[in-house]
Amino acid sequence: MRLTVLGATGSVGKSTLDLVGRTPERFEIVALTAQSNAQELADLARLHKAKLAVIGDESRLGELREALAGTGIRTAGGASALVEAALEPADCVMAAIVGAAGLRPTFAAASQGSRVALANKECLVSAGHVFTSAVARSGAELLPVDSEHSAAFQALAGADPDSIEKIVLTASGGPFRNWTHEQIATATPEQALKHPNWSMGAKITIDSASLMNKGLELIEAFHLFPVSVDALDCIVHPQSIVHCLVSYVDGSVLAQLAAPDMRTPIAVALAWPDRMIAPTEKLDLARLATLTFEPPDETRFPALRVARAAMRRGDTAPAVLNAANEIAVKAFLDRRIKFLDIAALVEDTLDAAERQGAICPAETLDDILAVDELARYLSEDKLSGY
Amino acid sequence: MRLTVLGATGSVGKSTLDLVGRTPERFEIVALTAQSNAQELADLARLHKAKLAVIGDESRLGELREALAGTGIRTAGGASALVEAALEPADCVMAAIVGAAGLRPTFAAASQGSRVALANKECLVSAGHVFTSAVARSGAELLPVDSEHSAAFQALAGADPDSIEKIVLTASGGPFRNWTHEQIATATPEQALKHPNWSMGAKITIDSASLMNKGLELIEAFHLFPVSVDALDCIVHPQSIVHCLVSYVDGSVLAQLAAPDMRTPIAVALAWPDRMIAPTEKLDLARLATLTFEPPDETRFPALRVARAAMRRGDTAPAVLNAANEIAVKAFLDRRIKFLDIAALVEDTLDAAERQGAICPAETLDDILAVDELARYLSEDKLSGY
Repeated sequence: MRLTVLGATGSVGKSTLDLVGRTPERFEIVALTAQSNAQELADLARLHKAKLAVIGDESRLGELREALAGTGIRTAGGASALVEAALEPADCVMAAIVGAAGLRPTFAAASQGSRVALANKECLVSAGHVFTSAVARSGAELLPVDSEHSAAFQALAGADPDSIEKIVLTASGGPFRNWTHEQIATATPEQALKHPNWSMGAKITIDSASLMNKGLELIEAFHLFPVSVDALDCIVHPQSIVHCLVSYVDGSVLAQLAAPDMRTPIAVALAWPDRMIAPTEKLDLARLATLTFEPPDETRFPALRVARAAMRRGDTAPAVLNAANEIAVKAFLDRRIKFLDIAALVEDTLDAAERQGAICPAETLDDILAVDELARYLSEDKLSGY
Repeated sequence: MRLTVLGATGSVGKSTLDLVGRTPERFEIVALTAQSNAQELADLARLHKAKLAVIGDESRLGELREALAGTGIRTAGGASALVEAALEPADCVMAAIVGAAGLRPTFAAASQGSRVALANKECLVSAGHVFTSAVARSGAELLPVDSEHSAAFQALAGADPDSIEKIVLTASGGPFRNWTHEQIATATPEQALKHPNWSMGAKITIDSASLMNKGLELIEAFHLFPVSVDALDCIVHPQSIVHCLVSYVDGSVLAQLAAPDMRTPIAVALAWPDRMIAPTEKLDLARLATLTFEPPDETRFPALRVARAAMRRGDTAPAVLNAANEIAVKAFLDRRIKFLDIAALVEDTLDAAERQGAICPAETLDDILAVDELARYLSEDKLSGY
């Protein structure tokens, strides 16, 4: 399989290459990219015999060239070089550049018509229909890499839309699951950063504590799977073992369970419909003993309510939600606002955007980027009032 | 879909016709059969506009004829008429005659080459390879109706054998799950008949209390799915919500969950790979709250150990196991032996059969029936020593 990894030095990128390295004979690495870590990119490119190594930060291109001198590995740098890397013919592109920086390269990957293993959230949350339309036009195959969506993908296994009753994503509930409203209101960044099950970056850990993360994932699921917003739900499952449950019209519920290790959904995205060996911890249910489930509480976790409302509103509302949330989370980490202000600021921003007529259908990625910029401006503006 | 229901007046047969009656336009009922309840069979045949109604007990044929006079529904009676009903051209035969009486009609259903929805345990437990060879020869499609095997079937969804690591069936643990060895040793039939989750016949309820049922299901799973005996296991799950878990080499575990209602696996067997609406209770995980799992205890439940040993021994050992268990359960219900003597008597019978050279490869259903008869004789003989 000819494989390109966009974001090779990030957590998903490294896990992907860890799997590749265990059966190198199955893969031919077309291109590896990184934003700024030239040395690590060079090491990975050399180790996996990549044909091309691309660094996003053009000022590091010299460093990359030097590190790869004499290897025959082509090098390039800059944002447009990332897009070109994504366009190189490949059987699968692992799209693992996080944040807005991943948008253009991932769109490029989708336009070339092969499999896109999608680990970038923004393409679906912010660009939604614009992205899925691009995928549909090129005939590319979209496989989600996020553990919940990979779980849904597996539990759906291409089921007929009419047979699906509900898709329920699980949420760990985060560190504040059992906290009172008053306690949550005064939570500090240090407390919010203590995620019980997964080790992730700061932004996503805060999203996980506010349940905004689950709201964003519901929006992604809406674009990934052939269901209505009413068929999408989430449930709190503190053990994070069950990742998704799909209910069918005949009363069957199919669930995917796995230890919290990204190599499982990555392996699914690479090998589907086959399976490849991933060296992950095997679930031992008899040892885990108890799996619990509880309804999410949108009073204590208003971010989930706000995200669901944005999903129902549709159009560019999720793009505004995502942009405002980034600003709000940063403000919380900078101690400029309190924890529950995150959801309030996002909601205020959505209202302001609606009043300005900025919540409207989008047709191109540029439309989305313009709304994203506006939403950031609006929330920065609101922020001064907190 | 042209559908025949063998055992139409039994619990699975009636649930099947309940589903059929909700979308009658999807089904054309070829034949319905029953063992002895002529009146109910006639009512069902009339209601579902069957072409043929067959009663196993020939002495009831007159009654059946009278009840169906003037309807144009053909009637027949006797064991060979059951076989002929199974051979009528149909797209699916629901093989729901319980016990040894179901063997010949189900073999006949398999030989006609269409879908066989299998609810008869003996075809796989006792006849195993003989049955699956017959299915393979005719090219019939075998869909399990038992809830655990239907769950495994769905969680496997035709997966490549190399991708499967383990198939784990769940067991409720029965009424003696938390009893000590001493308590179990003195359990009465009344106590053993109190199944916590399912309402079933006496024989299967006792099998469920001894965990023999799970042992028999492991043997069935061995013949249904492309896995080795080492890849088959069971786990105690008192809530009986999760029915099976399939582990894959990439760390994914797919599980099927459903409320305990046979209409779900029946709907799966009728509609697969589509899904049809079944009016079953919908699972509400947030209300159920807790799912627990624990390893089975083969010391307190020796029947499971004995069944697994018979599965490993292979050849006609499962046929001996099944026959001896029937004798033993009846003896327990008749208060001739104690609860733990069930497993002991079965094990003694297996040993005796091995010593006589009766545990050997079987090629035909007649070979199996001969071993079955011998095993019953041997266990009756042993029984006098208890």
